[in-house]
Amino acid sequence: MKKRIVLAFGGNALQKNGEVTAEAQKKIANEVGEIIYELSSKYEIVIAHGNGPQVGNILIHEETGSSEKAPAMPLETAVAMSQGQIGYWLTQAINNAFLAHGRQAKVATVVSQVVVSKSDPAFKNPTKPIGQFYTEKEAKALMREKGWTVKEDSGRGWRRVVPSPKPIDIVEKKTIMELIQDGVIVIAAGGGGIPVYKTKILGRLKGVDAVIDKDYAAEKLAELVKADVFVSVTAVPNACVKFGTPEQQALGEVAVDEIRQYLPEFKAGSMLPKVEAAINFAKKGGTGIITDIDHLKDALKGKAGTIVTK
Amino acid sequence: MKKRIVLAFGGNALQKNGEVTAEAQKKIANEVGEIIYELSSKYEIVIAHGNGPQVGNILIHEETGSSEKAPAMPLETAVAMSQGQIGYWLTQAINNAFLAHGRQAKVATVVSQVVVSKSDPAFKNPTKPIGQFYTEKEAKALMREKGWTVKEDSGRGWRRVVPSPKPIDIVEKKTIMELIQDGVIVIAAGGGGIPVYKTKILGRLKGVDAVIDKDYAAEKLAELVKADVFVSVTAVPNACVKFGTPEQQALGEVAVDEIRQYLPEFKAGSMLPKVEAAINFAKKGGTGIITDIDHLKDALKGKAGTIVTK
Repeated sequence: MKKRIVLAFGGNALQKNGEVTAEAQKKIANEVGEIIYELSSKYEIVIAHGNGPQVGNILIHEETGSSEKAPAMPLETAVAMSQGQIGYWLTQAINNAFLAHGRQAKVATVVSQVVVSKSDPAFKNPTKPIGQFYTEKEAKALMREKGWTVKEDSGRGWRRVVPSPKPIDIVEKKTIMELIQDGVIVIAAGGGGIPVYKTKILGRLKGVDAVIDKDYAAEKLAELVKADVFVSVTAVPNACVKFGTPEQQALGEVAVDEIRQYLPEFKAGSMLPKVEAAINFAKKGGTGIITDIDHLKDALKGKAGTIVTK
Repeated sequence: MKKRIVLAFGGNALQKNGEVTAEAQKKIANEVGEIIYELSSKYEIVIAHGNGPQVGNILIHEETGSSEKAPAMPLETAVAMSQGQIGYWLTQAINNAFLAHGRQAKVATVVSQVVVSKSDPAFKNPTKPIGQFYTEKEAKALMREKGWTVKEDSGRGWRRVVPSPKPIDIVEKKTIMELIQDGVIVIAAGGGGIPVYKTKILGRLKGVDAVIDKDYAAEKLAELVKADVFVSVTAVPNACVKFGTPEQQALGEVAVDEIRQYLPEFKAGSMLPKVEAAINFAKKGGTGIITDIDHLKDALKGKAGTIVTK
C-alpha cells in the first residue's frame, strides 16, 4: 500500500534562480515534476504550493493596468488566477516527467477555496504586506477609496497589508479525496487557497481579501486527506536552533514536546509557520518534515531533514 | 440513470449587463449556479466556459504593468489564469446555489490543457485579435522584439492576432471522466483550454500562444466524456437563417444534413463555430443544442432552441 504524502512547495521555490519569467519558472517546475515522478511509485501525492511572488506580480499588473473598462481583479480572485497559473506549470511538468519515462501521468489541479472565520483576530490586525509600493499620497487615497489598510514599510514606501487568517476547512476536500483514491496526483490549496468565509445566510460562501499561510493551509489539507506524511519543502535542509550564530544546530528527528520549546527562536512568516504546521500534523499522529528539495528523498527515509513526530 | 450534458457558456455571458468588475461577474455566475442546481437532479453536468473578455483584460493588465522585476505572463499562462479566475467564480456560485437549497454541491474546476497540432494551418495564418490596441510604432516594436503578429484592426489601431487552432485532445480527460463518475459537477476546458502541442521529444507537452475556440473545445470535451447532450449557451434563443433580414427564421429541430446547407449564412467567430460544434456532436450520435440561458430548460425538453440531431 502506498503512503499518502502532502508536499508544500514555496512559491519562491519556482524563482530560486532569481529569474521571474514564465519560461524560467517552468524550468524549475520541471525539476519538481521529476521528483514527483520518482516519488509516485511509493506515494500517493498531493501538492500544495505557495504563490507569494506570483500573486504579488499579478496584483501589480492588475493595479497598474486597471481602468474603467478593465478594472483590477480583487485579491481573492487574484489568488484563484495564481492557482491556474502555477497549477498549470506544475501539471504540465508532471505530465512531461512521466512522458520522459514512457508513462502517462494522472495529475490534476483543483481550484481550491479555503474556509476562514470572519471572527479570526487577523481581520482586526492585517499584517501581511502584498503587491506594489505606493507614495504616502497614493496610500491615503487607496485607504479612502478602497478601504484598504496601507502601511509604511520600513522606509521602502507604503504598501497594502492584508489579514492572514487561519485555515479551518477546504471546500473541495471530498473531490480532492476522490481524486487521490482514483490514483490522481492532485495539486490543491495553491497559494494557501482562495480565502472564503461562511456567511450567516445559509452558510453561503463569500471570498475575502486575505492571504492564508500556505504551510498552515497545506497542513490542514494533509489532515483532511488523512495523509501519513506532510513535508514543508523549503530553501534549507533543516530547521535550525540558534540560527545564524556559531552555536547553530540543525534539528533532525525531534518530538513535538522538544521542538515546541524552540518555537520563540523561529522567524515569523518564514520558519515559524513551517515548524508550527509540522507540530500540528505530528500531534494528530502523522510525520511532519521540514527540508529542502535536495534532501527530500533522504528525509522520507528518515536520513535527512527535520522530522517531527508525536 | 442521469443523462450526461456538457454546457458551453460564453465568457461574455458573465458580462451581459455590460459590467466588468469581479463583483458584477460573480452576480451573473450566481444565476448560472442556480440553473446548474436545477439541472443537477436530471443530469451529470460538465461546464466549459469561454474567457474572451476576461483573458483580454488579463493580457492588458499583464502588458501594461510589465517590468523586468514583474514580467508579463505569456498568453498560454494567461489562459490558465483565466481558468482559475472564472472557474473559482462558477465553483463558488454552484456551491452557493446548492447551499441555498440546504444541500452540499460536489463541484470542481480542473485546470485543463487542450492539445493542438503544430501543423494546424492556423499557425501560419493567425486571425484572432486579442488584448489591447497599440500605435503603429508600438506594434512594429512588438513584432520585432516578441515575434508577435500585430495587425491594423479596422481603423481602431493595431492589435495582436494569434492562431486559433482546432482542439485534438484534452490532457485531463481521464481525470475529468473519473470526477463525473464520482458524481462531481466539473468545470473544465475553460477558455477553450490552455493550448499545448506534443513536441517531438517523447511527446512532451509545450504551451503555445494561441486561442482555441471554446465551442470547438467544449464539443471535443463532450465527445471525450461520452456526453448525451452538448449545449452552446449563447445570447440568442436559436440559430437563425437569413439573420437580420425580414425573412429571418429561427431553426428548431434540424438534422445535420439540413443545417449544413445554411453554413455559409452563419457568422465566423460567432454563430458559425456553435453550429459547426453542434453538427460535429450530432454526427457522432449526440444531441447538439444552441440556445440562450432563458430557454435552456425548455430546449432540453425539446421545446425550444436549435436542436441538431443526426
